[in-house]
Amino acid sequence: MAVGATYPRGFRAAGATAGIKASGRPDIALVAAERPVPAAAVFARSRTAAPPIAVSRRAIADGQAQAVLVQSGNANAATGARGVADAERMARTAAQAIGAAADDVLVASTGVIGVPLPMDLVVAGIDVAAAALAPDGGAHAAEAILTTDRGPKTAQRDAGAARVGGMAKGAGMIRPDLGTMIAVVTTDAQLAPEQADRILREAVDRTFNRITVDGCASTSDMVALLASGDAGPADEAAVAEAVAGVCEDLALMIVRDGEGARRIAHWRLSGAATDADARTLAYAVAEGQLVRCALHGGDPNWGRIVAALGAAGPAVDPDRISIAIGGIELCRDGVAVEVADAAALDRAAALDVVEADIAVGDGPGAWAVWGSDLSGAYVELNAEYTS
Amino acid sequence: MAVGATYPRGFRAAGATAGIKASGRPDIALVAAERPVPAAAVFARSRTAAPPIAVSRRAIADGQAQAVLVQSGNANAATGARGVADAERMARTAAQAIGAAADDVLVASTGVIGVPLPMDLVVAGIDVAAAALAPDGGAHAAEAILTTDRGPKTAQRDAGAARVGGMAKGAGMIRPDLGTMIAVVTTDAQLAPEQADRILREAVDRTFNRITVDGCASTSDMVALLASGDAGPADEAAVAEAVAGVCEDLALMIVRDGEGARRIAHWRLSGAATDADARTLAYAVAEGQLVRCALHGGDPNWGRIVAALGAAGPAVDPDRISIAIGGIELCRDGVAVEVADAAALDRAAALDVVEADIAVGDGPGAWAVWGSDLSGAYVELNAEYTS
Repeated sequence: MAVGATYPRGFRAAGATAGIKASGRPDIALVAAERPVPAAAVFARSRTAAPPIAVSRRAIADGQAQAVLVQSGNANAATGARGVADAERMARTAAQAIGAAADDVLVASTGVIGVPLPMDLVVAGIDVAAAALAPDGGAHAAEAILTTDRGPKTAQRDAGAARVGGMAKGAGMIRPDLGTMIAVVTTDAQLAPEQADRILREAVDRTFNRITVDGCASTSDMVALLASGDAGPADEAAVAEAVAGVCEDLALMIVRDGEGARRIAHWRLSGAATDADARTLAYAVAEGQLVRCALHGGDPNWGRIVAALGAAGPAVDPDRISIAIGGIELCRDGVAVEVADAAALDRAAALDVVEADIAVGDGPGAWAVWGSDLSGAYVELNAEYTS
Repeated sequence: MAVGATYPRGFRAAGATAGIKASGRPDIALVAAERPVPAAAVFARSRTAAPPIAVSRRAIADGQAQAVLVQSGNANAATGARGVADAERMARTAAQAIGAAADDVLVASTGVIGVPLPMDLVVAGIDVAAAALAPDGGAHAAEAILTTDRGPKTAQRDAGAARVGGMAKGAGMIRPDLGTMIAVVTTDAQLAPEQADRILREAVDRTFNRITVDGCASTSDMVALLASGDAGPADEAAVAEAVAGVCEDLALMIVRDGEGARRIAHWRLSGAATDADARTLAYAVAEGQLVRCALHGGDPNWGRIVAALGAAGPAVDPDRISIAIGGIELCRDGVAVEVADAAALDRAAALDVVEADIAVGDGPGAWAVWGSDLSGAYVELNAEYTS
């Protein structure tokens, strides 16, 4: 059965091995509709965003796209004018191979930063991928976009008669900040471009923008949504829910696959002055290196959470802080609470998914963030891997 | 010979073992002048700053102090009203033991957060320390303020006839932000309180405020300067230089002793719009987990530096970024430079002290930050240690 980007009708996909990766793993993925379709995309907000981001921003400006091309051997970032020319040539090559216009192809690249693309390999790989496009190619495409991921990430949801599918990659350099990592979401619902845009931005805000692995935002993030319309008109709210569901599944797969991660935590912050304050505080906790080390050790070390809250910036009333792990209150009004069942607390702090509730006052601001632990394996991987 | 806080004339110091630390190591340090003397202090800016910070802020408001009491077994943080009462009682106890006024004793505590102090042990330990005060006690005091430090940190400088000495502690939860970690600096120069304040703030801004280990700001930072005046009038500029020198030595000792650190880096950033922008950018690089992993691996991975700069916030022109490691240019105008001598680059990236120069444009803003690498040993230490 077709998974991921080819779960909805009206899409074909493929993966190819262009030889860009030293590992010899697939490194070119292509997802294509039969014609230009309504589409939307969000991008890395980095001030050093990679050339493919600029090229894809231009391509999506008219609210339509026919294909998404992802190359996972080299980020084509910090490559200057040559990088822009290379990204444009990638789009032209794919467009020619599938009979589309170049400005209807979105391109994304991920991998090492600062190394020019081996364009001979890339061009040949795009042609191979285009020739291999198939209605059940979603799994191959999902494989071909990976870098340090432990495995492919695909998700599917239904919205009445319409289907939504998606794939994503990401395990390190994950800290979406009004952008996100690489993901391609497709639907066969009939949507206007502005509906696609609204649905995607809301879904990203609820999902990819609430995760973190290492607090390091990437140069190359992109999430695209293409709507083939093959399922005909659909209820926007139902499609939005399904798109958000697919994005949530993919986002959680990324956190679970966080480089070296042993467990993940759901940091639910409330009582801040505003949602923006709550978001800053929640990220400060989720990304604090000492908090992440405690999470790694299964240690319900709430003092480090208090320290992270105090240093984050937004107003916090130290006498109103409450913290619970797995529903067990550890701190109330800023001071320790006697824990009756220490063994239950140790278990809650060492689960695969640790639930943490943090209140910082009586304000209406709330935000929740998913994060992973910090392990020696993360350091080993990133001390050895030039990415 | 007297080192650290007792290098200048007019100070006695001692360390004592109160039994607060499970390890049985010394945990109470006391530094005392013969009478109330001009003094200054800077403190953690954390919104969850610990009770001793509030007590010491009040005590220093009149620009004089007679003693500094440091307890290193328990941070007395997130301890509420009881924590404030305990910190006040610590000051009273020390004051009584040395014949001073309670509001002339600065108190600082460091260690586990969220656990009330065992005051019986603390009070007895203070009395032992007071009885042991000696003109050559600087080394004992320096030993008694340590937590995860690998060893004591003391420094001395001369300013004409005047002497300056100091001690510090810190290895993790180090990210001074307009405050800093615990350090006590003494001088026998004759200074007015406002001179002491000016000298200390400028020295801290040039030294402790330019280092980082893990980007985690503490609840309990304090740097105090006490001036006994025993050396008589002194040239303010010379004393300022000596105080800054002692602070710089202590700050670099803290970075070198960064938990799990293998090497340190000096990140020199220039070309930003303002010094404040340069500071934000320099810290984003120095604290980026992927940059720190590359530093650990001795990998001159400049692409991660570009990614960190882009995500930091301040304006950066990606086409104007230049990066050199150990004087070897790797990136110019945003793209890779061919490196002639790859072996020399590998050596420069793997030194004990890695020198990095980063330019982000033509602006006048510049800042330099010292940081350490991120290692598996840091994670191990902090996954096991409840602090």
